[in-house]
Amino acid sequence: MAKIAFIGLGNMGGPMATNLVKAGHQVCVFDLSAQAVAQVVEQGASTKNSASECVKEAEFVISMLPAGKHVEAVYLAPDTGLINDITQGATVIDSSTIDAATSQKVAKALAEKGINFVDAPVSGGVGGALAGTLSFMVGGSDAEFNRVKPILENMGKNIFHAGEHGAGQIAKVCNNMLLSVLMVGTSEALQLGIANGLDPKVLSNIMSKSSGSNWTLDVYNPCPNVMDNVPSSNNYQGGFMVDLMAKDLGLAMDTAVNSQSSTPMGALARSLFAMHAAKGNGSKDFSSIFNLFNKEN
Amino acid sequence: MAKIAFIGLGNMGGPMATNLVKAGHQVCVFDLSAQAVAQVVEQGASTKNSASECVKEAEFVISMLPAGKHVEAVYLAPDTGLINDITQGATVIDSSTIDAATSQKVAKALAEKGINFVDAPVSGGVGGALAGTLSFMVGGSDAEFNRVKPILENMGKNIFHAGEHGAGQIAKVCNNMLLSVLMVGTSEALQLGIANGLDPKVLSNIMSKSSGSNWTLDVYNPCPNVMDNVPSSNNYQGGFMVDLMAKDLGLAMDTAVNSQSSTPMGALARSLFAMHAAKGNGSKDFSSIFNLFNKEN
Amino acid sequence: MAKIAFIGLGNMGGPMATNLVKAGHQVCVFDLSAQAVAQVVEQGASTKNSASECVKEAEFVISMLPAGKHVEAVYLAPDTGLINDITQGATVIDSSTIDAATSQKVAKALAEKGINFVDAPVSGGVGGALAGTLSFMVGGSDAEFNRVKPILENMGKNIFHAGEHGAGQIAKVCNNMLLSVLMVGTSEALQLGIANGLDPKVLSNIMSKSSGSNWTLDVYNPCPNVMDNVPSSNNYQGGFMVDLMAKDLGLAMDTAVNSQSSTPMGALARSLFAMHAAKGNGSKDFSSIFNLFNKEN
Amino acid sequence: MAKIAFIGLGNMGGPMATNLVKAGHQVCVFDLSAQAVAQVVEQGASTKNSASECVKEAEFVISMLPAGKHVEAVYLAPDTGLINDITQGATVIDSSTIDAATSQKVAKALAEKGINFVDAPVSGGVGGALAGTLSFMVGGSDAEFNRVKPILENMGKNIFHAGEHGAGQIAKVCNNMLLSVLMVGTSEALQLGIANGLDPKVLSNIMSKSSGSNWTLDVYNPCPNVMDNVPSSNNYQGGFMVDLMAKDLGLAMDTAVNSQSSTPMGALARSLFAMHAAKGNGSKDFSSIFNLFNKEN
Repeated sequence: MAKIAFIGLGNMGGPMATNLVKAGHQVCVFDLSAQAVAQVVEQGASTKNSASECVKEAEFVISMLPAGKHVEAVYLAPDTGLINDITQGATVIDSSTIDAATSQKVAKALAEKGINFVDAPVSGGVGGALAGTLSFMVGGSDAEFNRVKPILENMGKNIFHAGEHGAGQIAKVCNNMLLSVLMVGTSEALQLGIANGLDPKVLSNIMSKSSGSNWTLDVYNPCPNVMDNVPSSNNYQGGFMVDLMAKDLGLAMDTAVNSQSSTPMGALARSLFAMHAAKGNGSKDFSSIFNLFNKEN
Repeated sequence: MAKIAFIGLGNMGGPMATNLVKAGHQVCVFDLSAQAVAQVVEQGASTKNSASECVKEAEFVISMLPAGKHVEAVYLAPDTGLINDITQGATVIDSSTIDAATSQKVAKALAEKGINFVDAPVSGGVGGALAGTLSFMVGGSDAEFNRVKPILENMGKNIFHAGEHGAGQIAKVCNNMLLSVLMVGTSEALQLGIANGLDPKVLSNIMSKSSGSNWTLDVYNPCPNVMDNVPSSNNYQGGFMVDLMAKDLGLAMDTAVNSQSSTPMGALARSLFAMHAAKGNGSKDFSSIFNLFNKEN
Repeated sequence: MAKIAFIGLGNMGGPMATNLVKAGHQVCVFDLSAQAVAQVVEQGASTKNSASECVKEAEFVISMLPAGKHVEAVYLAPDTGLINDITQGATVIDSSTIDAATSQKVAKALAEKGINFVDAPVSGGVGGALAGTLSFMVGGSDAEFNRVKPILENMGKNIFHAGEHGAGQIAKVCNNMLLSVLMVGTSEALQLGIANGLDPKVLSNIMSKSSGSNWTLDVYNPCPNVMDNVPSSNNYQGGFMVDLMAKDLGLAMDTAVNSQSSTPMGALARSLFAMHAAKGNGSKDFSSIFNLFNKEN
Repeated sequence: MAKIAFIGLGNMGGPMATNLVKAGHQVCVFDLSAQAVAQVVEQGASTKNSASECVKEAEFVISMLPAGKHVEAVYLAPDTGLINDITQGATVIDSSTIDAATSQKVAKALAEKGINFVDAPVSGGVGGALAGTLSFMVGGSDAEFNRVKPILENMGKNIFHAGEHGAGQIAKVCNNMLLSVLMVGTSEALQLGIANGLDPKVLSNIMSKSSGSNWTLDVYNPCPNVMDNVPSSNNYQGGFMVDLMAKDLGLAMDTAVNSQSSTPMGALARSLFAMHAAKGNGSKDFSSIFNLFNKEN
């Protein structure tokens, strides 16, 4: 079993750390919220007064933070960065969804101190974090990937090696940009059918078995009451928030701008999700974009 | 076995009629091209001097024509329309992809003469027509659907009942609009990954097993050499032509305009496919839209 | 002075006919609404029991109707079409905004009877109709243009010769598609500035004097209280309704589909105006699209 | 007359510095390119061995640099940043087009040393720089604006006060995003007319005098041979490069993402210009986007 430090115990990080505890690892957790720490400690984790102390003896340091600036600050801040505390030969696993450039910057700085690094953003949401069925998209060398894989398997089901440092972030950004396009495209197509008299259950069934088949139509249908147990049938509660999709699409746009890539559909999706969020829907599930195409009475 | 008249023996109609012959039906075929007629007659069909003569004793009349104006003319033209020749109680199956309004107009006119009608556009392309594995999206009453289903099963695998007259066309239009969005979205996402150093095979595998999963990514990948036996790995030959996708997206826009529906992604797809066609790619497979996002040297 | 029949006395047609009366012409008006007829008769027009009777002695027949199907029916309906009543050598001026194909069809049918025709759709709205300051975009031969010009000058300020039959409709569609793009683009740009702390008056002034200058920014600003006497400063009342812009954009999409033209911005505008109309804003001025980009509290 | 240091003598900076010399100021110039320096020195400027030496006695320091990272480095780099050399009470004018956040960061750091700052990006291109007719969009306090205005008037015609620090950059970004939308929308509308048989000169004239009027149509028409003396009539040479528009649209997208603003048309324009650049058109004038909508033979 491994000695693991886990930094960042939000909606995702909390259950991920808990799954590591359950798998038998020695896990030292840290978060600015004492309550978040207490919940995981209750499950058998230890804690210390600071992240610095947590990482000192760790073989693996896992972080789950909101944005690139937090990741850079936590690891590289002059004087207080964990780079000063992590032992040589240890491996950092950053599961935050951030820009690839920051991942690469952190990777490079850590490498100069003999510390390994992978970016390993996840998909699967809070449900996947709780169930230990997340997908991890890993950026790092083959050796680094092989070292982290067994650890990640305690928290997820699909562990993908996307490429070198930063490639995990790129894969995540590409996937989520595509996901947003699938969701908007599916919503439009269903609404076009409804406006022309079709039953959305019938139309969903036809398209799912035809070339319109896609994840959002087949297993996460945005039209209420076509499927059970999806957010659209629960007033768009739970699932993956509009605000988080908007954040990921912001990263996608950064990536597209920096690589001078043309992404008309992804860019349109970002503007539509931003519009939807601005109308007070930021904390609903992202499938609620379906309502943007509703006709009001 | 049934007596069937088959009008319109193009790339799709020819093999469809041939499959009916093979299933043991008595098939009388007609097309303006003597060569097209000869090919199906060689397989065992009969022919007559005109469509009018073909339909006179038929229990089923199947048509496969390019556009709504042809369908309307063939059935309803004053004096020459087949409405004057088809026997009461017979059933017309129009498998052309046309606007729903024309389908409904023809259905109504035929009904007044005691002739049944279904709109039954197909998906699956020339390959599906040859293999007898087409999908049919059928618009008509339950009775009409039940009557045509056994006939359609000789030409296809999935026979969907979409709803009343015109619903088959609407379902087709919704599916193909969604398909176009999937293809563009997938192309953008793959190109964004490639521009940022990812291997398209690796990225395709990751997204196919994640929430980016969709028909175009999973079974019809637009990036050359990710999959075997798809048009992208064969210089975009074969498959479903850009010009045909542009035509279907034109029908989708008509449908959206007439029902005052908002379809921003579908509309964007139409403009991108029109742009791609205008640059000389109209007869390539529609997955060649991938190249719109290429960087040239 | 000319003998003129005027068919269609809606919000636009009524004041247009009145201006012809004021200019001294003998105007016989017809509309299905007796009230609409009465209003223009009060100004000095005559009327008859039917459109047929009105046109019998007219040198010019002017029509202002809602859609292509009405225009085709009024002129070409078997038995009842005005084509049977208009005298040889007379000139039809159709000022309806409709598809060019219908204009061309009517022009051709009338020509076979020796009747002249121009399509002459207008811009300038109800205000321009009342003030006699409309713009007319005329499709027809040079001779036809020269014949109608003096008549149109009694109702409008700018009389443009766009080209042959149908060209007036095409010019109108192109202009209004562009207008919709200007309005959305201006709204986005102003809202982006506001969201980043700029005063919309200051930003409007800067852009109007720079390369962002355009009609919607300079004389029809969509941001409330930047300008006086525009709909945005009057709760988006009056002006050019969202529903009418959506109708014109529908014509633009038909035109683009039929000519296989790529119009990504125009298509996006249509979907955004359709979305805006579907949320209950159809009868507001089209500059209210500005609110689509608002942030709600 | 003022003592001015001018850093960055590219296509824009060179002629701007020259105009200051001509106006009688004492100008000390610096650039990494000795040749660029020599050209301005020939006009009467002085130079020194480093930027640091140039700024030491300057009342005004003007910079014209490619991107935010250069501006930050030039002024704030530890040890080597000009912040260490500029005298208290002097005023920095940064005319680079960069992100507002960097402008604000530099402004704040300089303020702590008692140095004034305005961001003052320009529009008007190389032609405007040569002719001294640039527009400046200035961000800073009223006092700062009043101090720099007379200096800027030696290089430009319109000097706008956009707001506080960073507001100049925001105004520039909003204007250029809108400009890109005008150019694409105008190109689409003209091409739609051409595809339907209209003469682009006639259509341009009609729309310019109607509600389609905008800067790109009226004074910078993208269709070859509609106007003289514009890039489209000179094989799209000269003017404002596609690559520069793409850069500005990248800044616009950053701004939109950071303020969670919805900018569907601006985002679409960015993707279209990126696509156009990727096909080898990066160094053409941005009106060449017109060709994206051409039909090839």
